[in-house]
Amino acid sequence: RQSLRIGLIPADGIGREVIPAAKRALEALGSDIPRLEFHELLAGFELFTRTGTALPDETVQILKTGCDAALFGAVSSPSRKVAGYSSPIVALRKELDLYANIRPVVSVGRNVGGKPVDLVVVRENTECLYVKQETIVRTESGREARATRLITERASRRIGKMAFDIALGRPRKQVTIIHKSNVLSITDGLFRETIRAVPDLPEVAGRYAGVALAEQIVDSAVYRLFREPEIYDVMVAPNLYGDILSDAAAALVGSLGLVPSINAGDEFVMGEPVHGSAPDIEGKGIANPLASMRSAALMLRHLGYENGASRIDKAVNEVIEEGSVLTPDLGGRSSTSEVVDAVLRRI
Amino acid sequence: RQSLRIGLIPADGIGREVIPAAKRALEALGSDIPRLEFHELLAGFELFTRTGTALPDETVQILKTGCDAALFGAVSSPSRKVAGYSSPIVALRKELDLYANIRPVVSVGRNVGGKPVDLVVVRENTECLYVKQETIVRTESGREARATRLITERASRRIGKMAFDIALGRPRKQVTIIHKSNVLSITDGLFRETIRAVPDLPEVAGRYAGVALAEQIVDSAVYRLFREPEIYDVMVAPNLYGDILSDAAAALVGSLGLVPSINAGDEFVMGEPVHGSAPDIEGKGIANPLASMRSAALMLRHLGYENGASRIDKAVNEVIEEGSVLTPDLGGRSSTSEVVDAVLRRI
Ligand SMILES: CC(C)[C@H](C(=O)O)[C@@H](O)C(=O)O
Ligand SMILES: CC(C)[C@H](C(=O)O)[C@@H](O)C(=O)O
Repeated sequence: RQSLRIGLIPADGIGREVIPAAKRALEALGSDIPRLEFHELLAGFELFTRTGTALPDETVQILKTGCDAALFGAVSSPSRKVAGYSSPIVALRKELDLYANIRPVVSVGRNVGGKPVDLVVVRENTECLYVKQETIVRTESGREARATRLITERASRRIGKMAFDIALGRPRKQVTIIHKSNVLSITDGLFRETIRAVPDLPEVAGRYAGVALAEQIVDSAVYRLFREPEIYDVMVAPNLYGDILSDAAAALVGSLGLVPSINAGDEFVMGEPVHGSAPDIEGKGIANPLASMRSAALMLRHLGYENGASRIDKAVNEVIEEGSVLTPDLGGRSSTSEVVDAVLRRI
Repeated sequence: RQSLRIGLIPADGIGREVIPAAKRALEALGSDIPRLEFHELLAGFELFTRTGTALPDETVQILKTGCDAALFGAVSSPSRKVAGYSSPIVALRKELDLYANIRPVVSVGRNVGGKPVDLVVVRENTECLYVKQETIVRTESGREARATRLITERASRRIGKMAFDIALGRPRKQVTIIHKSNVLSITDGLFRETIRAVPDLPEVAGRYAGVALAEQIVDSAVYRLFREPEIYDVMVAPNLYGDILSDAAAALVGSLGLVPSINAGDEFVMGEPVHGSAPDIEGKGIANPLASMRSAALMLRHLGYENGASRIDKAVNEVIEEGSVLTPDLGGRSSTSEVVDAVLRRI
């Protein structure tokens, strides 16, 4: 491959402040990665309010045909129901079949509650309630709305394999299935049972024999996450539980502003900080760029550029450990650009 | 009323160790409450494995016709799929139309993270994914399971009113609606919009004018719960989010063994500790009886016996603050019965 073609989709709010930081981190790597080619692409709620479209076809087409990977910023949520609007990030995950949302949550230096956290949330990224099949009817006793929660064997199996593969590359080698099969015996029952059966699939040929398998019911999983984060290594969860769990885990390591993710499929990968568009701090120049920079590193690692990825990670970790140049979410007083400069100096 | 008829349903595991504690607390109140009449009733997974029934008709009938209130212990969840088994607590909530699950989470003395917590989770208790309408089909690419998530205007309105009524009786007077309407715009949109409209209903006649209304998306609600629990007063949530949120809040106050709840309807109330059947400590005599005793107090308060309720609460709080007689979940070394005795001495 001559060059690495990366779609940049800052989207809304602080997405526009942190995606440039990730871009600069990539540019700083020089010959550790191929020549970079960036494509700035549009999406977001703000775009929707201006143009009536949250995710232009052109954005999807360029990602599909002209990019090797992408970085996504954040989307704002309307504070009232807005006819015709639908979240572009949820749509992108589906359009590009990015079926795994991988969110490593690792404490570096400072961390809340004293206990070190080192886990990965592997979130199924295409189904569960995110299929957005909702209906509403008017009855004698008022309106009734219904949503469909879809869990398939196919999606559960592929996210299960992804979780086992990730566990294989980690020292603890443990997968914990998160579910609520005591209530959702059929849907979560299928999720749990399918993942339990992954190590015995003929095509995996015993590869996961050394991985320990555990499970937790989602409510008690969140409870134990706070009290004993050390019991978790790789947590694999249906879409919505994974959404909640990754925010919960982020609280333990000090800030959502530290937690990166990738949306990964078999053909494409898109980095995305776990934080949102943060309307409260938008435009103040104090958004934490570290989650976005770490997302660029995760994206590179997924593409096979381990050297480049670890140079970014190392620089970010040094800045956190050193502790004098941090944004306010981490108790610091530095600006986004000061933190970016501090990281770039160390790359 | 000549006597107070209370159904006792210890069910599984440590439910059988903590319900007797709640019973003794009630008995210790003497003339602050009417004469007590207890009915021991059967339910649970263990019962199911012996008899094939998790919730006998007789239990439901006696609760409906011969009891003024009830106390429920905990149910075990099968570790594998068990044909024909369905959670008796979910069924009871529906059978008795106990539409509000009210879970006050308050730190007394010791609490994790240093910040005092004083909030109430008001959880809708009859619908959402708990309607348990699930199907599964076999397709070319494997099995596909679907569950229905139901949100009605009627149930959202009554849980909304309950939340506002509870907020009225608290110093902060704030209701925070928890939802995920950025993804579930129709179902959670209906929940959010219906509760937002409660203060303007003609029948409430401006009663809630002094209550502040806020909202949070569920993932960021959990994140902020850990970092800034002080921003919450009354949190009102659809069933599943409420389930997860109350466990998350419990982690902040030190132990699930402290958190009580009531399942309340217009006709009936059932106290229930938020913790589960805890198979790991079952039979060891070290289960924390305080959540169960507090649930008895909540039940009494709901029935209008404020004196009796606050005598139990005060005694429980004194034992926690004093700190020398606590079960292992709170870092103590005392047994269930030692803690019960300590509370009873103070009632
Ligand atoms: C913005 C929202 C649709 C999204 C989600 O729920 O997936 C976000 O919370 C996330 O975790 O990426
Ligand atoms: C045991 C289970 C069915 C129950 C629930 O999900 O409601 C429990 O977690 C609770 O919170 O009371």
